[in-house]
Amino acid sequence: MITMEKFLAIDAGGTSTRAVVVDASGTCLGYGRSGVGNPISSGIEAALASLEDAATQAVEASRKGAVSLSGAAVAMAGASVQIHGHLFHERFITLGLDGNTVIESDLLAGYYSGTFHTNGYALMAGTGAVGARIKDGALDAVSDGAGWLLGDDGSGFWLGREVVHAAVAALDGRGAPTALTALLLDSLDIAWDPKNRIDGRVAAQQALMKAAYALRPVELSRFAPLAFAPAADAVAQDILARAAGHLARTLAAVADPGVQGPLVFGGSVLTKGGAVGAAVLDAVSGAFGAGGGPAQAVLVEDGMVGAAVMALRAAGITVDAAVHERITGTLSTLR
Amino acid sequence: MITMEKFLAIDAGGTSTRAVVVDASGTCLGYGRSGVGNPISSGIEAALASLEDAATQAVEASRKGAVSLSGAAVAMAGASVQIHGHLFHERFITLGLDGNTVIESDLLAGYYSGTFHTNGYALMAGTGAVGARIKDGALDAVSDGAGWLLGDDGSGFWLGREVVHAAVAALDGRGAPTALTALLLDSLDIAWDPKNRIDGRVAAQQALMKAAYALRPVELSRFAPLAFAPAADAVAQDILARAAGHLARTLAAVADPGVQGPLVFGGSVLTKGGAVGAAVLDAVSGAFGAGGGPAQAVLVEDGMVGAAVMALRAAGITVDAAVHERITGTLSTLR
Repeated sequence: MITMEKFLAIDAGGTSTRAVVVDASGTCLGYGRSGVGNPISSGIEAALASLEDAATQAVEASRKGAVSLSGAAVAMAGASVQIHGHLFHERFITLGLDGNTVIESDLLAGYYSGTFHTNGYALMAGTGAVGARIKDGALDAVSDGAGWLLGDDGSGFWLGREVVHAAVAALDGRGAPTALTALLLDSLDIAWDPKNRIDGRVAAQQALMKAAYALRPVELSRFAPLAFAPAADAVAQDILARAAGHLARTLAAVADPGVQGPLVFGGSVLTKGGAVGAAVLDAVSGAFGAGGGPAQAVLVEDGMVGAAVMALRAAGITVDAAVHERITGTLSTLR
Repeated sequence: MITMEKFLAIDAGGTSTRAVVVDASGTCLGYGRSGVGNPISSGIEAALASLEDAATQAVEASRKGAVSLSGAAVAMAGASVQIHGHLFHERFITLGLDGNTVIESDLLAGYYSGTFHTNGYALMAGTGAVGARIKDGALDAVSDGAGWLLGDDGSGFWLGREVVHAAVAALDGRGAPTALTALLLDSLDIAWDPKNRIDGRVAAQQALMKAAYALRPVELSRFAPLAFAPAADAVAQDILARAAGHLARTLAAVADPGVQGPLVFGGSVLTKGGAVGAAVLDAVSGAFGAGGGPAQAVLVEDGMVGAAVMALRAAGITVDAAVHERITGTLSTLR
C-alpha cells in the first residue's frame, strides 16, 4: 500500500488559529484549533504556542501510526512574518515535518478558500477591511487594509465605532435620535436618564465614553452587530449604507477589466451581514469593464481551505476544481 | 500703604501649563510657563511638578518682598481632577498660599478668557473639540468633547486623521487624487513611486501607514495644518467644510434661545483656521432663536485669563468689564 504524502496547513488569525493535515489528493485527515496566532498583535511566543497547539491537535487527529509531513504552509497577516518563519518551521519539525515551511498572506488564503482559480478578486471585511486583485496566483493589487486608525473603512471596527459615535452624538443632541443609543447602553448596563447631567454633560454619555475608552480601540468591533439590529432606524441604515459604499470603493479600486475571475467575500460583515454584501455587488458591477464583473460572490468562513491549497501548491501539486472541492468537503466534516 | 490681596491662577493643559499671580484689581503681576499639567495624560507627579514650576516662576516674577497668596484657582481638563485637588493645594502652601484652592473646568476657563459675562457659549477646537453653554456662571450643557476615538469631530486630531486617511485612500485609488498626498509624504520624508508595489500594495502607502501607527493616535493632530495648505484642492476643501459642519453641530447642540450671551472661540482650528470659524458662525445663526445668535466670536489663546477670573471670583471679588480688561491687558504685557 502506498501512503500518500501529507502536509500541514495553518490559518493563523488575530482571534484564533486553525490547522489541518491534508494529503496530496486534498483529503483533510485531522483538524485542530487554538488561540491567537498573530505575532504582531500577541507576540511571537504566544503565536508560536498557538500554532504548535493547533498543529499538534491536527496531527494527532490524523495519526494512524507515525505521521511524516512533507511540507507546511502558514497563512498569516502582517508584513513582518517573514522574520519569524524559521521559528515556526523549527516547531513543526518536532511534529514530524520533513520538508519546507512557507509563510503566505492571509489575504491570499482567504481568496483560495473560495476558489482554485489563480486570477480573481477578494474582499474581506471582518475586524478589518481589505480588497485584493489576484493575478497569476499572486497579489497584484491591494486596497485599504490600512488598519482601524487610518482605514479599514466599512469593517467590523468601523461599524462598531460608528455605532458608538452615533450614540454619543445622539446623547448630546449633535446627532439624530437613534434606537442604537438604547441598544448600546443596555449592552453596557448603563442607565439612561436624559435629565441627569454632571458638569453640563449627560451622565449616560460620560459613562458610555468611560466604558468605550476602557477597551482597546479594535474591540469597538464588538458593537458592529448592533448596526444590523434596528431595521427601521434611519441612523443604523445610514451606517450600513456607508459601510457598503466604502467596501464597494475598496473593491472597485482593485478591479481591472483585464483580470477576470471569481470574487471571494470573507469576514462577518460580508458573510453574515447579507444586505451589505448585496449592496457592494450592486455598486461595483460597472468597475470590472464591459463584462460586468462577478454577479455573485463565493462566501468563505476563514482562510483554512486556502492554506491547504497553498500547502499543496508549494509542493508542486496541482489544485484543480476536484481537489479544491475535496479539501472543502472533507474539512467541513472535521470541524 | 495698603497691599492688595494676591491670587494664584493656573491654566494646566495637555501640552503646557501657565500660571499668573493676579491682584484683587485684576492686575497681573507675574507669569510663568511650564510643561504638561494634565494628570490624566501625564500622571499626577509630572502634573504636580509642572504646576509647581509655573507657579514658582509666576510668584518669583511678581515678588517685591514676601508674597502671600489669598487663594488659588487651577483650570484643568478631565473628570478626575477633584481627586487630586488637595495635592495641588499642598504644593501651593509652600509658595505662600494662605487660602483655598479651587479646581475648575478648563472649558469654563476658556470661556471666561473671552468674557466676564456669566451667560454665553464656548466652542473650543484644539486637539479636541467641545461646545458648552454657560448659564449663571456654570456649565449648563456640554456637547462632544468625546475624545479622539469617539468624537472630537472637527478638531485638530480629526483634521489630521482626515488628512492621513485621504492620502492613504488616494494612494490605492479608493479616494480622489489630492495635493495632500505629496504634502504629507514630503513632511514624513517618504519617497513616492506609484509603480513600486510590495505584495500588491503601493510601497509609499505602506511606509505612510508605518509612520502614522508609530505615533500615539492624538499625535495625528500634527498633520491638521496640511488641510489648510492647498487652497485649490477639492479633497482638502471638503475636509475643512466637513470640519466646520461638525463644529457647527457641536455648537448648535448647546444653543438655547433662552440663554443669550457672547460666543467664545478657542483652539487653533478656530482661532488660526479663519475660514472654519467663519463657516461655523454662518451655519449656526439659526440655532439661537429669532434673535439670531452671536454675529461674531471672541477669540481666546488659552484659559489663562479665565483662570484668573475664577481665582478672583472664588474669593468673592466682582469681575466686571473693567477688571476683565485689566486682566487681559496686564497679562499680555507679561507674556
